[in-house]
Amino acid sequence: MPTITPTHYRSVRETTERLCRPLVTEDYQLQSMPDCSPPKWHLAHTTWFFETFVLAEHESGFVPYHPEYRRLFNSYYEAVGERWPRPARGLLSRPTVEEIYAYRRAIDERMQILLEREPTKIATLVEIGLNHEQQHQELLLTDLKHALGLNPLQPVYASEPVPKRAMSPTPLMWQEYPAGVGSIGHNGNGFAFDNESPRHRVFLESFQIASRASTVGEYLAFIEDGGYYRAELWLSDGLRTRQEQGWTAPLYWVEKSIFTLRGAKPLDLAEPVCHLSYYEAEAFARWSGARLPTEAEWETACGERHVSGHFLESEFYHPTAGGDSFFGDVWQWTASPYTAYPAYRTADGALGEYNGKFMCNQIVLRGGSCVTPSGHIRPSYRNFFPPEARWQFSGVRLAKDLT
Amino acid sequence: MPTITPTHYRSVRETTERLCRPLVTEDYQLQSMPDCSPPKWHLAHTTWFFETFVLAEHESGFVPYHPEYRRLFNSYYEAVGERWPRPARGLLSRPTVEEIYAYRRAIDERMQILLEREPTKIATLVEIGLNHEQQHQELLLTDLKHALGLNPLQPVYASEPVPKRAMSPTPLMWQEYPAGVGSIGHNGNGFAFDNESPRHRVFLESFQIASRASTVGEYLAFIEDGGYYRAELWLSDGLRTRQEQGWTAPLYWVEKSIFTLRGAKPLDLAEPVCHLSYYEAEAFARWSGARLPTEAEWETACGERHVSGHFLESEFYHPTAGGDSFFGDVWQWTASPYTAYPAYRTADGALGEYNGKFMCNQIVLRGGSCVTPSGHIRPSYRNFFPPEARWQFSGVRLAKDLT
Amino acid sequence: MPTITPTHYRSVRETTERLCRPLVTEDYQLQSMPDCSPPKWHLAHTTWFFETFVLAEHESGFVPYHPEYRRLFNSYYEAVGERWPRPARGLLSRPTVEEIYAYRRAIDERMQILLEREPTKIATLVEIGLNHEQQHQELLLTDLKHALGLNPLQPVYASEPVPKRAMSPTPLMWQEYPAGVGSIGHNGNGFAFDNESPRHRVFLESFQIASRASTVGEYLAFIEDGGYYRAELWLSDGLRTRQEQGWTAPLYWVEKSIFTLRGAKPLDLAEPVCHLSYYEAEAFARWSGARLPTEAEWETACGERHVSGHFLESEFYHPTAGGDSFFGDVWQWTASPYTAYPAYRTADGALGEYNGKFMCNQIVLRGGSCVTPSGHIRPSYRNFFPPEARWQFSGVRLAKDLT
Amino acid sequence: MPTITPTHYRSVRETTERLCRPLVTEDYQLQSMPDCSPPKWHLAHTTWFFETFVLAEHESGFVPYHPEYRRLFNSYYEAVGERWPRPARGLLSRPTVEEIYAYRRAIDERMQILLEREPTKIATLVEIGLNHEQQHQELLLTDLKHALGLNPLQPVYASEPVPKRAMSPTPLMWQEYPAGVGSIGHNGNGFAFDNESPRHRVFLESFQIASRASTVGEYLAFIEDGGYYRAELWLSDGLRTRQEQGWTAPLYWVEKSIFTLRGAKPLDLAEPVCHLSYYEAEAFARWSGARLPTEAEWETACGERHVSGHFLESEFYHPTAGGDSFFGDVWQWTASPYTAYPAYRTADGALGEYNGKFMCNQIVLRGGSCVTPSGHIRPSYRNFFPPEARWQFSGVRLAKDLT
Repeated sequence: MPTITPTHYRSVRETTERLCRPLVTEDYQLQSMPDCSPPKWHLAHTTWFFETFVLAEHESGFVPYHPEYRRLFNSYYEAVGERWPRPARGLLSRPTVEEIYAYRRAIDERMQILLEREPTKIATLVEIGLNHEQQHQELLLTDLKHALGLNPLQPVYASEPVPKRAMSPTPLMWQEYPAGVGSIGHNGNGFAFDNESPRHRVFLESFQIASRASTVGEYLAFIEDGGYYRAELWLSDGLRTRQEQGWTAPLYWVEKSIFTLRGAKPLDLAEPVCHLSYYEAEAFARWSGARLPTEAEWETACGERHVSGHFLESEFYHPTAGGDSFFGDVWQWTASPYTAYPAYRTADGALGEYNGKFMCNQIVLRGGSCVTPSGHIRPSYRNFFPPEARWQFSGVRLAKDLT
Repeated sequence: MPTITPTHYRSVRETTERLCRPLVTEDYQLQSMPDCSPPKWHLAHTTWFFETFVLAEHESGFVPYHPEYRRLFNSYYEAVGERWPRPARGLLSRPTVEEIYAYRRAIDERMQILLEREPTKIATLVEIGLNHEQQHQELLLTDLKHALGLNPLQPVYASEPVPKRAMSPTPLMWQEYPAGVGSIGHNGNGFAFDNESPRHRVFLESFQIASRASTVGEYLAFIEDGGYYRAELWLSDGLRTRQEQGWTAPLYWVEKSIFTLRGAKPLDLAEPVCHLSYYEAEAFARWSGARLPTEAEWETACGERHVSGHFLESEFYHPTAGGDSFFGDVWQWTASPYTAYPAYRTADGALGEYNGKFMCNQIVLRGGSCVTPSGHIRPSYRNFFPPEARWQFSGVRLAKDLT
Repeated sequence: MPTITPTHYRSVRETTERLCRPLVTEDYQLQSMPDCSPPKWHLAHTTWFFETFVLAEHESGFVPYHPEYRRLFNSYYEAVGERWPRPARGLLSRPTVEEIYAYRRAIDERMQILLEREPTKIATLVEIGLNHEQQHQELLLTDLKHALGLNPLQPVYASEPVPKRAMSPTPLMWQEYPAGVGSIGHNGNGFAFDNESPRHRVFLESFQIASRASTVGEYLAFIEDGGYYRAELWLSDGLRTRQEQGWTAPLYWVEKSIFTLRGAKPLDLAEPVCHLSYYEAEAFARWSGARLPTEAEWETACGERHVSGHFLESEFYHPTAGGDSFFGDVWQWTASPYTAYPAYRTADGALGEYNGKFMCNQIVLRGGSCVTPSGHIRPSYRNFFPPEARWQFSGVRLAKDLT
Repeated sequence: MPTITPTHYRSVRETTERLCRPLVTEDYQLQSMPDCSPPKWHLAHTTWFFETFVLAEHESGFVPYHPEYRRLFNSYYEAVGERWPRPARGLLSRPTVEEIYAYRRAIDERMQILLEREPTKIATLVEIGLNHEQQHQELLLTDLKHALGLNPLQPVYASEPVPKRAMSPTPLMWQEYPAGVGSIGHNGNGFAFDNESPRHRVFLESFQIASRASTVGEYLAFIEDGGYYRAELWLSDGLRTRQEQGWTAPLYWVEKSIFTLRGAKPLDLAEPVCHLSYYEAEAFARWSGARLPTEAEWETACGERHVSGHFLESEFYHPTAGGDSFFGDVWQWTASPYTAYPAYRTADGALGEYNGKFMCNQIVLRGGSCVTPSGHIRPSYRNFFPPEARWQFSGVRLAKDLT
């Protein structure tokens, strides 16, 4: 049974707001594509989550903070009712940023009271809410990056330079794993989302996996070898998408420089390549004479490793050489479509919509990124995005058959 | 030769900013559809107009205010070069609202100096620039209304109530005009846009025209008679558009109430109906046993009438009963596609793009509206919008053949 | 009062079928874009017209030929009821070609009987039906050309070569017309569509008009002068369309050759240029230091000229040098949007939909083309197509102001 | 090493043509949506396959049958070069049906000669070609059904009635399988596509699987229970697709009747339900308190069963009660996205594109259908379609966890 202290609650909530500190009011409203949400919406929706799933269920004499918010800030919960259309989230100038902060403060106060009064009863829901908020911390930054990145003025999110880290990549080593039956899925210690359970047995044929993520330098060689134009390297849907979108390099590459949350900078060959779609990751792997690992291979290779690496707290906001680990820097596309584990059960009620209903047309990514809160990731964590998505910090770890 | 005083310049420029005073920062960035622009963009673009067409040409030692603004705030001038895509105007959080106001102040200062030094040389250009700015004052309000109108919170632009004006409409009278040769087009007194010239002769068969715009009450009778569903009343393109868009009433009608810049209010049967597309206006006219006037008929009937009516300065921000006039309250759709007058010539250079290149697929409207600055309208003034446009204050004045 | 003999009826109907003689069964079903219809559909719809508007109204004991045909072959008559969707006309393999010919024979027999019994009563309707059929004779060929033209095998409609007509164009002369009041519209002699009436007075400022249509050689000079890429020559909507469609030459030009109904052939500089959109025609006119004539100018200049030129009966199926005339070879885009003449009245009932409901978003063309039946055209004839349409035999006759 | 006799080659080729015998010429050209191809195209493409992959490689002095056919009838092989666009396959009236049959005869003759001369050398390629042709036999019928089904005349492919088979469904039994390591994938006996290999080990948790496919009666209960409108039963993408497409029943259901290749008929509660999308299958399974089997579960439960059931040869052309088997009647959606087996290798060259490049965004179906040639199916056979596809004979076999 989890215990959630008011301090922990405040700490996660404050992190979200601290991430917004560099923003001007105008930034809060940006929605640069339907997949992205404005920072203001992230601030409101994460608050709505506590109001809707905790307060409305467990606060005695609950009164909604505002009669329209239940609808305005519902993301995708059919069981909660109507929703403001996702692609139109950037069209709401009101409530204002200030009103959203007031909403946060009001809900936080009511949550503090409830946390003190009924810590046990609501602990499970609050834990989900805080993990949900951490997911939105990452999305807040990736969505913001997308919006700032298309502005010709190239606004900088964080300008104080991080100390220069001149470094070559460590050599890529292949780690071998024999065939056999293993187990994957959450081991029951600490929090996990429902999609990580139940832990179950899998048979893996023998395989090898790279000791680190692939680098900008390695990906550049793929580009320079004509990789984007060699049909035999691509999935059929990938080739079509590449042509329709005119991809010739990862997202945010502009010739030999790259847009980051700290502004444009030259390509750094040693750092992990990121902002790849699954299609690009898959073509690059094929070009490399390798393939992507399945999520079972990844998790098996990861084992019960200690979680360390470059996360949100490092404030790099960009993958950085030297963080070699299964975790951090870049999410790693696996070869596995996102599906249910054997005997998977969704939660009852609206929260059952959290993960299960998205188990189609998406691919699993593993490992967390440079903007994932460090306490949020674990070996069994399953992130998922459609194969054409590029605005997350998504990269590659190679694998191979062992023959 | 026009004379433009620094005072007049300041007065027009200040009006634009005064119109923005009720806005919160978040409102400045709203773009609710590709046809609309954010208030911030209107503020910047009108300033860009003076910088690009006056200062860049006539200020000695001209240096651009910002290297990117020439592109960012160019609306549609091919001769000026690249343009930021119109549908993405709402995606720029930077420059901030404050930076745009600073831009306005800087350009205004340079303009004041130039106006004092070379009043004659730049007078014609400045006059166009101020008329251009007045057009954007109207658009700023119609675009803002569109954006606020879709927000479920129904934000109010101007909340201080205008005194209630209980009033029935004046009876609709038919004014008759005999067949004959007349002249339309600008008479040369004062400013006019190039598309109003040259004044030229036209032959009109006899006709009659309504003494006032059609009212909400009259339009409601059309609706209640099944007007939206009777195919025989509609143009083919109109019927298709009505079906695709699901139109069953003018824009901003929600059952028996109506969204205005002063908030929602009940339908007022006596006030001029507005926010109609050409298709609706045309179907309504047919249902009425009448038709829309051609622009030559409208201008002939208008004659050299004194310009009076309900304009921006009245601060009604909505058509209001009792303003019976050829001017003000609502733009009146004519039956005339927007084309060139005989011997029409566009200006040389970029300003030649101001009007001429839009002479296709649009319909002329006449008379100005409740958000048109009163000094901006005249009998020969030709406004134009595509037949499906509804977000302007567009209404109907009926006409008939005389037989 | 018109008189329609059974012989005349048969003659028009047989012409349609004769035009189909070169087709293989597979050709009858081709629909290469939503604007085009399959030959089979043209054969059926023209028959449907007689069944629906003549037999169903005037045949005693009328029984529909087939219960589904009323719907399947209704083009756009809302008053007749439901319609099979236009873009799906090519998806009906049944009724077969043979069944459609049987339908024609059956309706023709019933029409013959009725024509003999009640020649006067149905004459007006039959006359419209035969003119309607002639319009579809032209469309049948232009639609077929579009479908054959995209086939890489470049199938030939008519292979027997027409005698080579080596010829330079006649010099282009400018014919001048003084300002004044004139009349346009149908003069009442013989058949005309409702949109040509009533004849009415117009005032024209003085103008001049070209003695012949512009040629391939003249248009080639426009292309070679970069005409397609000079924004200042284009209407705004035209420029956008050109970019979206990638236009760099008229439709059916492939480098220096051109696809015709008689197969590919080299460009012939002397022949009238055709398959231009209004946008191209308009830009070309501007580049030429001229403009397009209004339809009132065209009709005034045409006067009551005898109709002669290269028509369907010449079997050229392509504009050909030497036919200098106001008629034939190519339809000539005018500067006039398609609108109602003063005091225009549509017919009652379904036939009122024939012309009036299309009076929006289209441009008038005059003069007929190389695939117009010669008996179908007259000085007051108004054809109309959207400004982006290129698959008709549409060309240019230049005009100018006289100053 | 396979042996392909000329007789076997002829037999498969003749089957394709026999399936076309009920068609009229007009039917051969139908393409009712981009996913479907015209019968004429299927006839040509399967011939192209032998010409391109067998004759062009192995016939001495090979000369292409027609210079354009390599491009016109290439489906998706990038390595072969340019392709005629898939959605435009129905726009080619030429080559005619007769010319395509001539093409088939010519290639067949050359193939017969080569088969006699070099049976061993080309056996593997010819075997693929014949299996490829069998796939197109099925597609020919499903594509044709789609095209005929939208015709309001409801043309019948095969009119001779099959003897009425009044029958209730057999009771649905659950077959249990214990947890453990098994193997799936082709066992090496006889032909298989590359995507069925290599055979490899999998671990399956215990499960149970239904003894037969779900029936129309069972699916009707889902509909009547509001299944299409209960969001909690649907995947997120499924719900969106259902809403956009307006699904309220399987494809081809019109109220209580159903369109089949033998014409419309009343719903038969006992027959397997078909023409479901994956989304519908998945929602129905959830509503049933069950789930779809993974492909490993399906194949494990199927074991090495003898292939029997209702196939193409039965000439039912529709799923029919009483055929209870793992094979025939309806393809069964599994829960498995289509991905590569461990150590999967594509073939070299163009044929490497046959299967591998489609391993994204598709779902595996198992078992074959009523229009699958009986010799074409086997336990390891993997069919795959996107989750929204409904025009195949696709149904459901339920599975459950064993707990």
